[in-house]
Amino acid sequence: MPVDPLRVISDLKELRALTGSADGAQRVAWTPVWLKAREWFQEKLKGLPVEHHYDAAGNSWTTLRGDSDRALILGSHLDSVPNGGWLDGCLGVLAGLEVMRSLAEDFDGRPPITIRLVDWADEEGARFGRSLFGSSAFAGTHTIEADRSRTDRDGVRLEDALRNCGIEVEQIGRAGEERTNATVYLELHIEQGPVLEGRGLPLGVVLGTKGVERHAITFHGQEAHSGSTPMRVRRDALAAAAKLALEIRPIARKHPDAVATMGSVKTFPGIVTAVVGRCETTLDMRDLDAKVLASMLREARDASERFAKEEGCTVDWSRIWSIEPIPFDQQLIEFCEEAVRETAGVSHRLPSGPLHDAAEVARAGIPTVMMFTQSLAGLSHNKAEDTRVEDLTLAVQAFDRLARKTLSWLSEQG
Amino acid sequence: MPVDPLRVISDLKELRALTGSADGAQRVAWTPVWLKAREWFQEKLKGLPVEHHYDAAGNSWTTLRGDSDRALILGSHLDSVPNGGWLDGCLGVLAGLEVMRSLAEDFDGRPPITIRLVDWADEEGARFGRSLFGSSAFAGTHTIEADRSRTDRDGVRLEDALRNCGIEVEQIGRAGEERTNATVYLELHIEQGPVLEGRGLPLGVVLGTKGVERHAITFHGQEAHSGSTPMRVRRDALAAAAKLALEIRPIARKHPDAVATMGSVKTFPGIVTAVVGRCETTLDMRDLDAKVLASMLREARDASERFAKEEGCTVDWSRIWSIEPIPFDQQLIEFCEEAVRETAGVSHRLPSGPLHDAAEVARAGIPTVMMFTQSLAGLSHNKAEDTRVEDLTLAVQAFDRLARKTLSWLSEQG
Repeated sequence: MPVDPLRVISDLKELRALTGSADGAQRVAWTPVWLKAREWFQEKLKGLPVEHHYDAAGNSWTTLRGDSDRALILGSHLDSVPNGGWLDGCLGVLAGLEVMRSLAEDFDGRPPITIRLVDWADEEGARFGRSLFGSSAFAGTHTIEADRSRTDRDGVRLEDALRNCGIEVEQIGRAGEERTNATVYLELHIEQGPVLEGRGLPLGVVLGTKGVERHAITFHGQEAHSGSTPMRVRRDALAAAAKLALEIRPIARKHPDAVATMGSVKTFPGIVTAVVGRCETTLDMRDLDAKVLASMLREARDASERFAKEEGCTVDWSRIWSIEPIPFDQQLIEFCEEAVRETAGVSHRLPSGPLHDAAEVARAGIPTVMMFTQSLAGLSHNKAEDTRVEDLTLAVQAFDRLARKTLSWLSEQG
Repeated sequence: MPVDPLRVISDLKELRALTGSADGAQRVAWTPVWLKAREWFQEKLKGLPVEHHYDAAGNSWTTLRGDSDRALILGSHLDSVPNGGWLDGCLGVLAGLEVMRSLAEDFDGRPPITIRLVDWADEEGARFGRSLFGSSAFAGTHTIEADRSRTDRDGVRLEDALRNCGIEVEQIGRAGEERTNATVYLELHIEQGPVLEGRGLPLGVVLGTKGVERHAITFHGQEAHSGSTPMRVRRDALAAAAKLALEIRPIARKHPDAVATMGSVKTFPGIVTAVVGRCETTLDMRDLDAKVLASMLREARDASERFAKEEGCTVDWSRIWSIEPIPFDQQLIEFCEEAVRETAGVSHRLPSGPLHDAAEVARAGIPTVMMFTQSLAGLSHNKAEDTRVEDLTLAVQAFDRLARKTLSWLSEQG
């Protein structure tokens, strides 16, 4: 039985009706609406020859046992941000379910390799600020000590919210047991950016997730009266920051997929009648190549020091967060490209700027690849998030092709 | 009897001890400490052949009657900002008092022209945000309707605070009666900027107060994900604002005394992971020449529109406040320059960036000039505000010379 993309779209709409509002998707992890979405998902498994359980971190595992215990894992996440879109995460879970249905029928309930479908717990981190919660517990990279004290905006502790969902924070590391026999991981997701739309393409092959360098940069000058201080004697911290805001752009543009963003600028005293004495900024730089990312960071730092000097200021940097680039598996990238080309006629390789659960799985050493489908206007985390029905159709078909190519390859390995 | 600068310094120190704290001067207008300063001032008048009264706006007038009712007015203000300096305002009042003492003695209590000393009420506007309160009431430019509803940070209404000091807001316009026979106004003040110190000069002749154009400028771009949005498709409102922050500097530097300041930048959403969708800035431009100021404003506006276009943004401007340049009297500028040169050997003409009570007096059509003395490090509105004793000494001597030159000139006119 071939996959039925319209059934996926129908499932997505059913889920939207059940768990969305006029403002968009409301499936925030560890809330009743999210639990309702997961119950609904379990209902969808009825009649399929599969087993289901939740692991110690709340990840939802559906297993179609095969002749070999080695497992091909399909996955994504059902949770959403508040007022989110109808595709982010749940497209991958429900396309994976459709592929599983199709394989179960084609192999009469017993494929040569075990097929698993995972709905990761709390990819978004929308309530407690800790994204990739379940996949990092699976990958063994989650240190709960850093997150135990987190609270939501109502002051509810992470620990208590999890307990209400049957999860004990002390135990989440045991989700790592699911890595046993995990052989390959495949994830379909909307792009959440404008690249594919810009090229008029429905589908893309994801090369990996970009490394991120995130820093707070503060320029210190001299507060002074805007009326009595001549231009030539000023030590204007904003001027140094403005130069950096502009300079990070050519630094990033030297590299085809690199990005650099100054997202926040704060001025002190920040009044109309005073030269800025202190200017606090943030910088977020990303690239798939660790060497490129390191050189961008070095150039930005050098530039900031040069600008500080030019303006009679000083500058200090403090790292907010960073993660290394996580490249996906070369063989799986080839399979994904074949699947996309056979389905849509043309393919395009691109890195992912946003992080995904797939990055955590890849960090755990499991060969991984992702497929993207076009996002209209690049919008996501927003009720306006959308993808054309014809592109969703191609996405489900191409993802099925990718799964079957991977399955054949694993079967040949025995 | 020649003026005694050391007596002025001694008076300033006495006032500081009486009305300052470890954090600086605390003579905020309409507070008990300010009233105490004014009582202390009245004590200082004992034994002098003068009359004293408060006008309807709370300005303090000390009058040494002369043969003619035409009045040479000396003045400044005793009020300070919270944690202010020991010279801002009170130097001018106490130097004026010393000049009055000297003239009273030299003319045996009856100079040819009437001499008046004014301590303006609430120059700083520190409590209610309305600066030049008393001098604008005197000048007839104060429209109380706009200020009636002002409150201090504890919610006390301007109207009630004034009533506690014996002032009825409905009546302040009657301070205009003091303009009768007002013939000339002279004010000594600290520079509050670094120009004289930078030139190694103790004293300067003030050409007038600069006009001010104060605007809120907002750039509108497109908020976007910092990870998934390629550099080339961004519409970054911060980039447009940063270009303007840098461009206002060459615009101002074309003119010797012009200044342009971006004092506040706010970014929205203002988070590390988002391209700035909206950037709110402020611009403050000043020059003594109205044509120069108008051309600077036009150039800044054109530049902002060019930068918005380059970055795929839009921009809107809204005027916060503006005032025209107020030039001082040519003849009095000449007298001031002679007085400074005879006292200090060398003079320098400069405009004032900050506004002063003298600007309101000049707007009322009364020939006016100010003399500046050097501020160490350009600091003011701060307990670190200071001026060397030798410069204060020269300032009192030069201000006395200016008063006597002006008095002779008025006497010759009859």
